[in-house]
Amino acid sequence: MSRFYNRSSGKIGLPPGTMVHIGDTKTGQTTISLIDYDKDGLKETPVENIADVFPLKDEPTVTWINIDGIHDIHLMERIGQHFNIHPLTLEDIVNTGQRPKIEEFDDYLFIVCKMLTYDQEAGKVKSEQLSLVLGDTFLISFQEMAGDIFNPVRERIRKAKGRVRSMGVDYLCYTLIDAVVDHYFLILEQFGEAIETLEEVIVDKPDPDTISELHHMKREMIFLRKQIWPLRDVLGRMTKNDISQITDKTNIYLRDVHDHAIQIIDTIESMRDLLAGMLDIYLSTQSNHMNEVMKVLTIIATLFIPLSFVAGVYGMNFKFMPELDWRWGYLMFWGIIGFMVLGMFVYFRRKKWF
Amino acid sequence: MSRFYNRSSGKIGLPPGTMVHIGDTKTGQTTISLIDYDKDGLKETPVENIADVFPLKDEPTVTWINIDGIHDIHLMERIGQHFNIHPLTLEDIVNTGQRPKIEEFDDYLFIVCKMLTYDQEAGKVKSEQLSLVLGDTFLISFQEMAGDIFNPVRERIRKAKGRVRSMGVDYLCYTLIDAVVDHYFLILEQFGEAIETLEEVIVDKPDPDTISELHHMKREMIFLRKQIWPLRDVLGRMTKNDISQITDKTNIYLRDVHDHAIQIIDTIESMRDLLAGMLDIYLSTQSNHMNEVMKVLTIIATLFIPLSFVAGVYGMNFKFMPELDWRWGYLMFWGIIGFMVLGMFVYFRRKKWF
Amino acid sequence: MSRFYNRSSGKIGLPPGTMVHIGDTKTGQTTISLIDYDKDGLKETPVENIADVFPLKDEPTVTWINIDGIHDIHLMERIGQHFNIHPLTLEDIVNTGQRPKIEEFDDYLFIVCKMLTYDQEAGKVKSEQLSLVLGDTFLISFQEMAGDIFNPVRERIRKAKGRVRSMGVDYLCYTLIDAVVDHYFLILEQFGEAIETLEEVIVDKPDPDTISELHHMKREMIFLRKQIWPLRDVLGRMTKNDISQITDKTNIYLRDVHDHAIQIIDTIESMRDLLAGMLDIYLSTQSNHMNEVMKVLTIIATLFIPLSFVAGVYGMNFKFMPELDWRWGYLMFWGIIGFMVLGMFVYFRRKKWF
Amino acid sequence: MSRFYNRSSGKIGLPPGTMVHIGDTKTGQTTISLIDYDKDGLKETPVENIADVFPLKDEPTVTWINIDGIHDIHLMERIGQHFNIHPLTLEDIVNTGQRPKIEEFDDYLFIVCKMLTYDQEAGKVKSEQLSLVLGDTFLISFQEMAGDIFNPVRERIRKAKGRVRSMGVDYLCYTLIDAVVDHYFLILEQFGEAIETLEEVIVDKPDPDTISELHHMKREMIFLRKQIWPLRDVLGRMTKNDISQITDKTNIYLRDVHDHAIQIIDTIESMRDLLAGMLDIYLSTQSNHMNEVMKVLTIIATLFIPLSFVAGVYGMNFKFMPELDWRWGYLMFWGIIGFMVLGMFVYFRRKKWF
Amino acid sequence: MSRFYNRSSGKIGLPPGTMVHIGDTKTGQTTISLIDYDKDGLKETPVENIADVFPLKDEPTVTWINIDGIHDIHLMERIGQHFNIHPLTLEDIVNTGQRPKIEEFDDYLFIVCKMLTYDQEAGKVKSEQLSLVLGDTFLISFQEMAGDIFNPVRERIRKAKGRVRSMGVDYLCYTLIDAVVDHYFLILEQFGEAIETLEEVIVDKPDPDTISELHHMKREMIFLRKQIWPLRDVLGRMTKNDISQITDKTNIYLRDVHDHAIQIIDTIESMRDLLAGMLDIYLSTQSNHMNEVMKVLTIIATLFIPLSFVAGVYGMNFKFMPELDWRWGYLMFWGIIGFMVLGMFVYFRRKKWF
Repeated sequence: MSRFYNRSSGKIGLPPGTMVHIGDTKTGQTTISLIDYDKDGLKETPVENIADVFPLKDEPTVTWINIDGIHDIHLMERIGQHFNIHPLTLEDIVNTGQRPKIEEFDDYLFIVCKMLTYDQEAGKVKSEQLSLVLGDTFLISFQEMAGDIFNPVRERIRKAKGRVRSMGVDYLCYTLIDAVVDHYFLILEQFGEAIETLEEVIVDKPDPDTISELHHMKREMIFLRKQIWPLRDVLGRMTKNDISQITDKTNIYLRDVHDHAIQIIDTIESMRDLLAGMLDIYLSTQSNHMNEVMKVLTIIATLFIPLSFVAGVYGMNFKFMPELDWRWGYLMFWGIIGFMVLGMFVYFRRKKWF
Repeated sequence: MSRFYNRSSGKIGLPPGTMVHIGDTKTGQTTISLIDYDKDGLKETPVENIADVFPLKDEPTVTWINIDGIHDIHLMERIGQHFNIHPLTLEDIVNTGQRPKIEEFDDYLFIVCKMLTYDQEAGKVKSEQLSLVLGDTFLISFQEMAGDIFNPVRERIRKAKGRVRSMGVDYLCYTLIDAVVDHYFLILEQFGEAIETLEEVIVDKPDPDTISELHHMKREMIFLRKQIWPLRDVLGRMTKNDISQITDKTNIYLRDVHDHAIQIIDTIESMRDLLAGMLDIYLSTQSNHMNEVMKVLTIIATLFIPLSFVAGVYGMNFKFMPELDWRWGYLMFWGIIGFMVLGMFVYFRRKKWF
Repeated sequence: MSRFYNRSSGKIGLPPGTMVHIGDTKTGQTTISLIDYDKDGLKETPVENIADVFPLKDEPTVTWINIDGIHDIHLMERIGQHFNIHPLTLEDIVNTGQRPKIEEFDDYLFIVCKMLTYDQEAGKVKSEQLSLVLGDTFLISFQEMAGDIFNPVRERIRKAKGRVRSMGVDYLCYTLIDAVVDHYFLILEQFGEAIETLEEVIVDKPDPDTISELHHMKREMIFLRKQIWPLRDVLGRMTKNDISQITDKTNIYLRDVHDHAIQIIDTIESMRDLLAGMLDIYLSTQSNHMNEVMKVLTIIATLFIPLSFVAGVYGMNFKFMPELDWRWGYLMFWGIIGFMVLGMFVYFRRKKWF
Repeated sequence: MSRFYNRSSGKIGLPPGTMVHIGDTKTGQTTISLIDYDKDGLKETPVENIADVFPLKDEPTVTWINIDGIHDIHLMERIGQHFNIHPLTLEDIVNTGQRPKIEEFDDYLFIVCKMLTYDQEAGKVKSEQLSLVLGDTFLISFQEMAGDIFNPVRERIRKAKGRVRSMGVDYLCYTLIDAVVDHYFLILEQFGEAIETLEEVIVDKPDPDTISELHHMKREMIFLRKQIWPLRDVLGRMTKNDISQITDKTNIYLRDVHDHAIQIIDTIESMRDLLAGMLDIYLSTQSNHMNEVMKVLTIIATLFIPLSFVAGVYGMNFKFMPELDWRWGYLMFWGIIGFMVLGMFVYFRRKKWF
Repeated sequence: MSRFYNRSSGKIGLPPGTMVHIGDTKTGQTTISLIDYDKDGLKETPVENIADVFPLKDEPTVTWINIDGIHDIHLMERIGQHFNIHPLTLEDIVNTGQRPKIEEFDDYLFIVCKMLTYDQEAGKVKSEQLSLVLGDTFLISFQEMAGDIFNPVRERIRKAKGRVRSMGVDYLCYTLIDAVVDHYFLILEQFGEAIETLEEVIVDKPDPDTISELHHMKREMIFLRKQIWPLRDVLGRMTKNDISQITDKTNIYLRDVHDHAIQIIDTIESMRDLLAGMLDIYLSTQSNHMNEVMKVLTIIATLFIPLSFVAGVYGMNFKFMPELDWRWGYLMFWGIIGFMVLGMFVYFRRKKWF
């Protein structure tokens, strides 16, 4: 549940722009890595002291500073000062409850999006905040913890595979967002399979747990949608041709990832519709089942209660009961019983109860 | 289920513009066919080597290259190079999970739409991606497999029937989209009949399978809508008078097919409403049935349980039970029984239970 | 059901602009009538040969050609040629599955709307397509069959009642649409009464048929909405001041009929809301009824089953059962029974079961 | 029900602009009253002959003509002629089925809104149409019957209380609309109390009538919404700064009443949400109740039916039944019974059934 | 319930701009406090006489006048006169039923928003109206009662912490709104926890009270939404760059709080979705429970009613019943019983009833 709201209550009363790390500390240590490249060359180093990267800020090469771990407020402040990042931006970076958004500042573009992973065991979508600060020649990416999602990008830069080395920092930014969005497709696939499994269970042999699983899935869907929905608008905004940090050449790629975001949201909506339909099946299956149980009860009771009455009658101890003394009384009794059973049978048949 | 999402997970980590065929390989071999015509002449040949068609690119005649089978990445690359197609477009052509869309590039217009067929036996809508690359004098159409949907168009071109020979390549493009959209009407008709059949079943003699059939139909409807909905916007975009590849003369025809797309979506919405209403009937029919079963049980039980008690009383073995010794005891018993039955009968009548 | 979709499958593969009559042939013969008038004079004749009306096309008088029956393709073609009507327009006129729409062509305005009638016996809304081709001095109206809906308009023209004779052909066009829309109010009234009747039935004495009647009504509502909804936009478009065929003076009248269309859609939405609410009542009434039945069963069973047990106990044949030999054993039995009945009575009272 | 639609069927076939009074004639006689004022003076007279007010039309003073009763078509025509009112406007004034709207004519502004009253006994919202014709120096208000809603306004004019005497006729028009909208708040309060009462009933002791009361309330809500919703747009239109009859000074006041209309619609939406939630409670309360009834039945039946069987066994008349002859047979029987009751008790406890 | 509508009925008939205090009088005495500061100095005094603050109006320093308690109409009038506040604004300040809004006047900006607190014991959201009048150098804030929500802001001003002392009165205004919005996060957290608790109860051991708690929560959600939703538009309006009272420097901060408002509404929507899903679980859990109860009843009744019949048969007193005299009759009886029980067992197993 707490994934759904922003635990910002600890910040109440603090002046705006105060950095307070909100979110789980997902990594013990903050790691900084640097890749600096252009068409002709590449420099890649782990960074011990953040001050080492400052001189690269104004160089024409593409500078990508990746920071894993955002709880070190002091470090953030130093980066903020040097790269001229607005305190509100810094505040948003360390407060992981942001919704995906894009904000234009004089010197840079600030983008927040969510890296999602699906923990199949717990059946939970986990969300990690990715903040991107895109300057004219540098890109700073902030992750909550080290992940392998950007490794293929790094590999491509190293091996100068694809277009990445020959294009600017805006293309790098696109590449990272593309990696994030591509990962969403993976999650949708996992969800799709889980829905399919659940659908089979519901049609074949639903049990009381099925409904809570269904609810669980719906909740994850609500969460997923909440995380991804705003990204569509963020990317829509980026593809408008008026952001100085983004070149026309990159725009065509952003249009493509925008399209992917729409596709994903489409699929989420379809899945929500399917889940809603599954609840209907579940309920009507239950109701069917109830009907069947009731029919069995009714058939048995309707059949035997009258018979029991007849047997009861001839179990009475009245002095004067002529039938009891009849020679064929007992046989007559079975005759009555047989007749009643037959009548019931015809009645039930006509009602199509079996 | 897998129709609902894009199995793109195999592509994660690859640079954008990398062509990976995603989707079922629906045909073993890639077939290329060429129709090149203008008002005065027509040339139609199957193409062995794709290089044969390259010279036609810059001729003023209308050149229609149709490619059935999109899994041959190498072929795609060659076409892409020669016709100057952007890598992202090529990527979208071979990845069949696209939603219908239109993208304007400098040299061409890229349109994706879905050819749908309804497999009546499986009760499933099948979707095949049609990608169109519309240049100034050429049109390349990519289908997942060979189909007969475009045969009437070919026939018309051959016989110079209708307007097609006297108009440009944009009109040809319209004709293909029109053929696709016309086919949707056929699917709606099949759906309409299936809904009608289901409606009769639900009103007359619903059984537990009905609900899963209903669910099934809803799912197909969600799928259908997902495939067609975006096409409306695609066509809406095309009828705006500012795309250089589309002439005013063709525009009037596009407006017509746009109108058809709206009609189809309208009908899908109506069908969804009808299906939702059918669930309500089903549930209330079930509930009615339950009521009836319960009434039978209640009438029988309410009638005979008290009678059985009375019979039970006179089956007791108390030494001193004056009624047992009475001359008319047994008759009195039947009198009590008759009286009780009559009372119940009056009671049930008043409650309007039968 | 077939009213909901366009049976266009017969047209698949034909070139656009091919006229194929789609819809029921509602009249055996095509009838053409002509009214030609201006402020000062009136000429009204039935038309044997369509060619007779052609000369009137370019005269400044208002020429109204009404055609009942649209299945005569050859006639349509001749009209089309002479009045310079686009093939797509002709195609739409003979294909009765159009949704209401407006299309601007160079020489004329093409308007499609639906004339609806409510067949109270079958409880079905019937739809007939009215196509209007509005030129600068002529108006051609195409109906599927002869109807009396336009008779009052004809009467007004003949008697020069109201404004109609002193205004142009656009006003005549407005008058026809107004007649159509006025007729919708009549249908809404009939629906309103049917809903009221149904509401009373549901509250007072619902039976299993009620729900299918409710569903039926919902379906007609969906159909009605589908037929009328687009007309609002058509009329909204017509009141924009930029269509050359429509003068400012007529515009004020179109604004009025636009207003009526909005009113009608408002009412349809309200009726849909009411019908949705009625399903809720029905279901909860059913559930109430079930509750009542169950209570009767429970009271009777809970009362008599324990009593029967007690009677059963004293019907046992154990050699040694002291109570059986007691002088007041039988009386004691009735005492126990009375005590139990009293206890149950108190219990049920406290539970407020009766 | 008939409140929901416009009984305009009597008008079918009449030329537009034909005045036919539609609605209940709510007052026998038409009363005309006149207030004519400016900053310095006030003249207030009942009007016998409508011709008496005509000279005031062109005077610079504010002239307010109020007409109670709209069924006198002849009177309407005279007013129409003198004040230059368009026939369509006159038609709308006497046809009380209009939805709130604003229409701009060359000489005047025509506004329709609804005066609502809540008849608490019948639990019905009653609607009366108020039509306002706002000229440059005059305002004509048409009501279906005399009401006291405008008395406070008259009082303010007489006593020169507030701003009204020093401002123009547009401010007077605002004042009347404000009086109407203020009255809506009163209705919402009455509804709010009724909802609160119903909510308590539903939670505490719902009975079958509750649901029809709930339905009734929903219907009134739908009606209320239908009457008020369009007013928001009417007022929104009036606050746009481009209507010649409305001065900037009055605009600020219209903004305020626009704000009130939004507030009211907000509240209606909230109330609809609450009513929807109450149906859910009702249904689940019913279902709870059913559960409870079923549990009682099940406990009793499950307890006593097996016991009855045991008693039945020992009531059998087999010659050879050793238990019957045992000394402690009867005691043993009670032992079995006690054991079974205990077992059932433990079972039910574990199931948490009581 | 009364929180949902505006108890304005007391005002009906009064001229617009008449101040009538509507709402609970939440504080006995009106308290005025003043903080006047600029970069260099600070003056903070409680104010006895409102006239003391009037001279500060035109000074260039930032003047913040906070008024706790709004029922003193006379005081309001004096403030209104001196600060040139429009009567409609004053009316809105003392009428606490406003929805959040922004209104631009010539001399000032008027903002209404809601300070919400969650009374955890009563489970109710309480709303207090905050009205802000933002002039060029002064800000007047009106609260219904003294609260501690602005204390941190005061502290920051006193200690010159953060940016507040070096920026203008618009930044102060932002700071107050930010404090209000930050508080909303706290309420969402409390709601989130309550929802989580309720969810566990529903899944584990729902009882009849659960549903009314769920309803209660939904109602609070509707209320919350109604209070917060319009604020989004208010803030959206403020971030448009065209309000003279708001500088570009502050705008960036308003964008941030606008973002927070969107986040909050997002979360409310998600919570509403979750609550809707919880009702579904509750109902299906209930239905499951019913099914289980019915199964127990059916198993027991189906098992023992036939057995009882058999026992009844051999309890009959027919003279001639051969079985009764058989040596092994009694044993045979138990044989039949055993056989029947076994049959039932197999039948239930196959139906998977236990």
